[in-house]
Amino acid sequence: MEFTISQKDFSRSINIVQRAVSSKNTMPILTGIYLEARKDKGLHMKATDLELGIEYWVKADIITEGKIVLPASHLSGIIRELPDDNINFKADLDKYEAELTCLSSRFKIKGFDADEFPQLPEVNIPHKITLNCGDLNRLIDEVKFSTSTDQTQPALTGGSMVIDSGKIRMVATNTYRLSLSSLDLDGSPEGKKEVILPGNTLSELSHLLDDDGEVEILIGDNYVRFNFNGIVLVSRVIEGQFPNYQQVLPKEYNTKVRVDRNNLLRSVRRVSLIARLDSNVISISVKDNKMIITSQDSEEGFAREEIEIESQGPEQNINIDAGYLLDVLKVLNDDVVILELIGPLNPLTLKKENSDDFIYLVMPVRR
Amino acid sequence: MEFTISQKDFSRSINIVQRAVSSKNTMPILTGIYLEARKDKGLHMKATDLELGIEYWVKADIITEGKIVLPASHLSGIIRELPDDNINFKADLDKYEAELTCLSSRFKIKGFDADEFPQLPEVNIPHKITLNCGDLNRLIDEVKFSTSTDQTQPALTGGSMVIDSGKIRMVATNTYRLSLSSLDLDGSPEGKKEVILPGNTLSELSHLLDDDGEVEILIGDNYVRFNFNGIVLVSRVIEGQFPNYQQVLPKEYNTKVRVDRNNLLRSVRRVSLIARLDSNVISISVKDNKMIITSQDSEEGFAREEIEIESQGPEQNINIDAGYLLDVLKVLNDDVVILELIGPLNPLTLKKENSDDFIYLVMPVRR
Repeated sequence: MEFTISQKDFSRSINIVQRAVSSKNTMPILTGIYLEARKDKGLHMKATDLELGIEYWVKADIITEGKIVLPASHLSGIIRELPDDNINFKADLDKYEAELTCLSSRFKIKGFDADEFPQLPEVNIPHKITLNCGDLNRLIDEVKFSTSTDQTQPALTGGSMVIDSGKIRMVATNTYRLSLSSLDLDGSPEGKKEVILPGNTLSELSHLLDDDGEVEILIGDNYVRFNFNGIVLVSRVIEGQFPNYQQVLPKEYNTKVRVDRNNLLRSVRRVSLIARLDSNVISISVKDNKMIITSQDSEEGFAREEIEIESQGPEQNINIDAGYLLDVLKVLNDDVVILELIGPLNPLTLKKENSDDFIYLVMPVRR
Repeated sequence: MEFTISQKDFSRSINIVQRAVSSKNTMPILTGIYLEARKDKGLHMKATDLELGIEYWVKADIITEGKIVLPASHLSGIIRELPDDNINFKADLDKYEAELTCLSSRFKIKGFDADEFPQLPEVNIPHKITLNCGDLNRLIDEVKFSTSTDQTQPALTGGSMVIDSGKIRMVATNTYRLSLSSLDLDGSPEGKKEVILPGNTLSELSHLLDDDGEVEILIGDNYVRFNFNGIVLVSRVIEGQFPNYQQVLPKEYNTKVRVDRNNLLRSVRRVSLIARLDSNVISISVKDNKMIITSQDSEEGFAREEIEIESQGPEQNINIDAGYLLDVLKVLNDDVVILELIGPLNPLTLKKENSDDFIYLVMPVRR
């Protein structure tokens, strides 16, 4: 097995597939990157932690074919530090050992038998849809922060992806707050399909997706495959039932608030400096085009912010977790957000202005 | 107590004195910043962890005088997040409580009785010298990474500062490597003065010193005081005897090497990727204008780098800790460095070209 490849191409490719390398040491070979030199197709690279797998093809000058698995951390560290020149890669496939040469640098790395590397799963009888990479990235970014970290309820640690009636919808909730983001699809398939993607899959997709290009999604029963920009990402889905959130989405509201997102973000952040010393609960009062945000008056101090808003409807007072409001205000980039309130025991709803593609709910805190 | 101050000035001043705030919670008042409003002088701020103290005066519009101590983390968090406008500060000195108002933001913070805040120590009968801030910064940066972290030998956790015969010299060592950096002083006082500055003092000085302006150093027996750019930094000195390093400084060498610093840095860093999997020991061979750097041939792999150098003298082979070489190569910014070698059991010496103001020794590793 021998090939030459530019340092830049090799380093970039390793950075892509390395995201799927296992951080746990249960199977040593999974700490590695699979490399296969094919005269017809170039260098094939893949990595997997058995939940997530990423594969990538990169152009290389293949001299002799072969395959080997090398420890990802050593390989990526070395390639990143090599000069911007051509790298010669030669592997002794009996000893599972690779030799890398670049100008006057020479490295030997011990690896693993490539035949023992697991195959990435196939997605059978998939539901197939296509959308813009930037759109999928928006869907993911708008929901992924709402996933739960509580491993006793696995379904909540992921994001629900639903394809139905020409729409794609992503939802995540930890039962105290919920994000719902949706998009109209061009020519989606018949029927409804629903899977739960692991939180880590959402994070890695968000890292790898550019705004450019299209992504093809093949949704099976146990696996979902994403094809974009030459990258193949295969993710296991989380088994279990995602909660029926439709019933908690408020159908109406009493008071509507139009507020500058950045003003609200900065004010909540300041009040939170005092509130988080207690339990990070802030009180929001809305009355006559003014919003007052306060912390509880505690041993540590007190904070009060006043913001100009546009409000319609009766006065409102609600207590919520400041962190839940900060999370969503940081992710959106709209100038203005809309808040809808019913009463102190009902969820606060946050939406975009002039768009129905995003709904965020925060449950109130009773004190 | 009441004053107004610009958010920018207040935030900048807090950042300066906050560096001396205690990170331990042994005395709650030491987690605070002392604030004193004086009609004649503005706002006086200070903080100390009893080893290090920093004070600073900042311009403020003083309405009524008074003093209070406020928790540094709350105060700095709030001031940093406030808008770029004027802040009104009003304190209730009976309740030890301050109220901050800025546009439509209002904060109350509970604090401490300023009378209980410790005085920064005076430096009696000091030895006084003056030098450029940039020069002191260089002296510190060139030695501070060589301090020891072993608390059982307190003298080695600091840097020795010696004023003698018109020179200032800083030295740090962990017994496996040593940095010595020196500078000629204009008009230094008679006699020799020697103190050990704590490692943390060196770090904080390095953070606060700009390249501009002059620093006045008052060296007493137990404390050293640095005055620069309106900042007063008082540091306790470490008691104990600094080792007599003069005897380990090699008087001569057998082989001299002139090498590009950046080439050497990048090569050692790459070999270290493999070497650190073992014990981070690298072998350096010098012969006929070539330097070969290799890792041990271990279970994990092998690395070899070859660099063009200019060498005079017999062939040399030495094993050293790669980290010790990387530390110094990262800190220097010369294009070229000089290595002097005696033999495999003698220290490796690293110097600047055309300057005697820096010496770095690394002890060899025996294998």
